[in-house]
Amino acid sequence: MTEELQKGLEGVLVAESSLSYIGGDTGELVYCGYSIDDLARNASFEEVLYLLWHGELPTAEELATFESAMAEERHLDDGVSELVRELAEADEEPMAALRTIVSSFSAYDPDTGADPTDEAANFRKGRRITAKIPTALAAFSRIRDGDDPIDPREDLGHAANFLYMLNGEEPDEVLAETFDMSLVLHADHGLNASTFSATVTASTLSDLHASVTSAIGTLSGSLHGGANQDVMEALLELDESGKEPVEWARDRLESGNRVPGFGHRVYSVMDPRARILSEESETLGEAAGTPHWHDYSVAIEEFLGEERGLAPNVDFYSASTYYQMGIPVDIYTPIFAMSRVGGWIAHVLEQYDDNRLIRPRSRYVGPRDLTVSPIEER
Amino acid sequence: MTEELQKGLEGVLVAESSLSYIGGDTGELVYCGYSIDDLARNASFEEVLYLLWHGELPTAEELATFESAMAEERHLDDGVSELVRELAEADEEPMAALRTIVSSFSAYDPDTGADPTDEAANFRKGRRITAKIPTALAAFSRIRDGDDPIDPREDLGHAANFLYMLNGEEPDEVLAETFDMSLVLHADHGLNASTFSATVTASTLSDLHASVTSAIGTLSGSLHGGANQDVMEALLELDESGKEPVEWARDRLESGNRVPGFGHRVYSVMDPRARILSEESETLGEAAGTPHWHDYSVAIEEFLGEERGLAPNVDFYSASTYYQMGIPVDIYTPIFAMSRVGGWIAHVLEQYDDNRLIRPRSRYVGPRDLTVSPIEER
Repeated sequence: MTEELQKGLEGVLVAESSLSYIGGDTGELVYCGYSIDDLARNASFEEVLYLLWHGELPTAEELATFESAMAEERHLDDGVSELVRELAEADEEPMAALRTIVSSFSAYDPDTGADPTDEAANFRKGRRITAKIPTALAAFSRIRDGDDPIDPREDLGHAANFLYMLNGEEPDEVLAETFDMSLVLHADHGLNASTFSATVTASTLSDLHASVTSAIGTLSGSLHGGANQDVMEALLELDESGKEPVEWARDRLESGNRVPGFGHRVYSVMDPRARILSEESETLGEAAGTPHWHDYSVAIEEFLGEERGLAPNVDFYSASTYYQMGIPVDIYTPIFAMSRVGGWIAHVLEQYDDNRLIRPRSRYVGPRDLTVSPIEER
Repeated sequence: MTEELQKGLEGVLVAESSLSYIGGDTGELVYCGYSIDDLARNASFEEVLYLLWHGELPTAEELATFESAMAEERHLDDGVSELVRELAEADEEPMAALRTIVSSFSAYDPDTGADPTDEAANFRKGRRITAKIPTALAAFSRIRDGDDPIDPREDLGHAANFLYMLNGEEPDEVLAETFDMSLVLHADHGLNASTFSATVTASTLSDLHASVTSAIGTLSGSLHGGANQDVMEALLELDESGKEPVEWARDRLESGNRVPGFGHRVYSVMDPRARILSEESETLGEAAGTPHWHDYSVAIEEFLGEERGLAPNVDFYSASTYYQMGIPVDIYTPIFAMSRVGGWIAHVLEQYDDNRLIRPRSRYVGPRDLTVSPIEER
């Protein structure tokens, strides 16, 4: 027992995990043994979910079974659909809405009430939660825009089906693959704050729904999940300003504002996810006839690298990638959640597998000897 | 940076707090300078909420303003009322229902969207959340039983109004005071797991609704909030068995089961809250003509003290206290939440006041050099 105060728990080792390795100095990210580059180019989001939850990549047969089990779970129960509509009509913040909606899934999950550490039940719950989030999110976004929700299609992959439900048309192959890749890139990232909060909740033997709900709430904070939205708002500001990107960035720095999407607590070199998304964003821009978003980003990246020695993080390139897919800017963080839920579930399964209650200490620094006086004498 | 794995974070000092002091060896519990005995006997739950949130006991005028501000916030918005009905009709687990319901409060809170660290907005949000939980919980319980919800009354205190909404009749003074005392006893208890999870969520600058939602999810685990329900189920089993309490307890221990409600990670002597509740449970039992619940408890307490050197914790005596108030056994943990929300909010306010992102480390123990093979070759 040390008496040293460790407010942010920086450097405190709280878990061993076989899920992801982050090489901050080398720009590496590894899920269960595979580099993020390899997975992003050669595996689908469904394969990566399987990898994170089961520890190995699926065979063709395992993948087919897994994909259809996921696809069958995409529909929302009536109670959830009503709640999505109610929250959209109440103009709830998207991340708060997602938190309430995912929390409500448990009321209709046939495995609610099972032993929270029952692995088979947790695989089913995990598939249901992950499969239903895109449906709920697309419906929420459409209802806000005055459109009717679109039912999920079981014949599309996880990524393509989401874009279909959001935009009302089946995405072309480039869009679907790029979005799938983006989901792969965001699926896990060590013990970040949202993942840690999921494991704290799980450590009392609360169930998977409770744990994922905590993680969504934690991701919603501006120090964690909101950065990709901040980046796009900055790029839109640049676009409207009519300035050259470098001029805009210099003015922004000189007026004391930072440029969002640069620097990362873990990576001292370029975030490997940013590198991959940069290429995808370029391809998308060329295909869509909107190459300026990528051009802006590259110019800003070069400028900030030379001027400040800063490298872009994953948020910097996911912003323009999502924008070119027609995704509304204020649901970028929920889309982060739609991917990261894979990692949250995997970490919660690891926590249950060798659980210990997570309960640090606080030091009391107040008085101890006061006496309650009668209220009329205070 | 130490390489020692600290899975449960036991002994790791993560915060300084002026909220509660726990003397595990001396059986002391202090809120903001006042002993729990003094507060339980001489202050109402509303006074204790004020103390935890504002750091000092209110004057008569401050208390009157605070009480009426709380009482005015008791009604539920229509969207929340519908959700309560939907979850009750779906037979959702009470703690999961409470988590979803409290999460949904944010959609109707006029301060949602304010800077999450805005203290004045947080006092309003905190009052609203705390005021509405009893209304939602009573409505949920009544709808499950096929009864109509009862509207809150502004002329009753927080404790009395809850019992009125739950049972349909105004409680007598003994009941109302005992329940109020029980709320005071459960309002804060250092950095327990649910409170810690609230601060982890707050540390990304997520808002108060997100933080309290995480805490409810964390409290729902069987290693944390469920013990008072376990105690009552055990006492009911004893009552039905027709055995003498000591015989029942001995049989239970001999068959390898523990008796719930004994022992505490923090207290090596009797939990001061248990001592107070034991007296109240006795008074209640005499008034209600059901002294056997208290008699059972005392007999078991004596037996386990002599036989195993174990002392009862707060859950042991809150169980029979709640039972004698006509509170359904499976909402004992939500009632714990109804009180502890005061402490959660106070700790989140402290976190915002001097925030640092809470993000420990994990150690990767998997492979790093695998290559994705084509699926047909796996």
